[in-house]
Amino acid sequence: MSDNPSSKAPLRIGVVLFPGFQALDAFGPLDCINVLSRTESITLALLSITLDPVSTQAPDIPTTTGQSILPTHTFATAPPLDVLLVPGGRGSRGSSPPVTEAIAFIQKTYPSLKYLITVCTGSGLVARAGLLDGKRATSNKMVWREMSALRPEVEWVARARWVVDGNIWTSSGVSAGIDVTLAWIGEVFGKAKAKGIADWIEYSRHEDPDVDPFAELYGL
Amino acid sequence: MSDNPSSKAPLRIGVVLFPGFQALDAFGPLDCINVLSRTESITLALLSITLDPVSTQAPDIPTTTGQSILPTHTFATAPPLDVLLVPGGRGSRGSSPPVTEAIAFIQKTYPSLKYLITVCTGSGLVARAGLLDGKRATSNKMVWREMSALRPEVEWVARARWVVDGNIWTSSGVSAGIDVTLAWIGEVFGKAKAKGIADWIEYSRHEDPDVDPFAELYGL
Repeated sequence: MSDNPSSKAPLRIGVVLFPGFQALDAFGPLDCINVLSRTESITLALLSITLDPVSTQAPDIPTTTGQSILPTHTFATAPPLDVLLVPGGRGSRGSSPPVTEAIAFIQKTYPSLKYLITVCTGSGLVARAGLLDGKRATSNKMVWREMSALRPEVEWVARARWVVDGNIWTSSGVSAGIDVTLAWIGEVFGKAKAKGIADWIEYSRHEDPDVDPFAELYGL
Repeated sequence: MSDNPSSKAPLRIGVVLFPGFQALDAFGPLDCINVLSRTESITLALLSITLDPVSTQAPDIPTTTGQSILPTHTFATAPPLDVLLVPGGRGSRGSSPPVTEAIAFIQKTYPSLKYLITVCTGSGLVARAGLLDGKRATSNKMVWREMSALRPEVEWVARARWVVDGNIWTSSGVSAGIDVTLAWIGEVFGKAKAKGIADWIEYSRHEDPDVDPFAELYGL
């Protein structure tokens, strides 16, 4: 149904959350999806290891500010999904239970997905799940060396705002999540819909996936 | 202290929340503030009429998706603040208690603030509080006529990504909140800090407040 915008069946989107997710990694795409849901039939599941509020603050870094959002489902009670969005952030590192459970959920869910979309270091979680092996993918440019070292089996593409390989869409750092989401909406719901949402949120898009000023900035 | 980045006293930031706030209006600026708080001393209060989770879904429009975030304080228990950030969104309209209490809080708090920053239709709340009378201000461009009609005593500036008048910084729709926040950080903490955060979040900024492609798009 996701290929047929005129279908009435809702498109079922899930978002993976863990402590220390980057706020804009999640809420850039989510804002686009919220606007999309004014005209298209969408369901949304916000998924985490428990139903406890999930903070943007990671346990291991000295941010003094953070925000907590409420999951709607645990990984164990997740509904069937068509699309899974994986943000990144400081908390995507390491092997604490919220992270290893997220990786296991991504791995288990992928075979039934129509699309898997990552933002920033979210591609590291998908790489660690083994789903990017032999595929082209990108990630955050400031921590590029750390990310690309996670899994050498991936064909990491340094100069890209986003990369599409099969049904996996990976994007560069933080705000690139807005661009990949709008590009994906353009693919599934049509370019006019994507432009309408960009105009609604007054966002000056990157429309060319190969133009990446931040790869250059970080010397990649 | 906000004029002196070397000071150790924290800068106390508050964000006004109400049901139906636009996710990116709040989380664009908040992501910048979260990154800022890695190096600068910041406290953050998320303020609403009660401590109940605040949803991005407004009661009166047919979005099927939304996210709920947790306030840290009510308007009645707000700590002293140096900076108040007011997002917009569908829920900024009307006269329900969460909106009228927000307007009353903005009005009461403004005299002790160093800076008041608005995103999108958040300037409508500040205008309704009477704080923009005789001042230059901007707002969302898609709903420009509705916003500028709210309070004719305001000198509404249609072509602006953001406008600074005294200590009030008003910005255009949704993603313009990221630009005004980075500009404000540049003013208070220095241009290098603002550039560092923009690069961190891989955001291609609008750096000129007078360049506004969306005013043109919406025929203003």
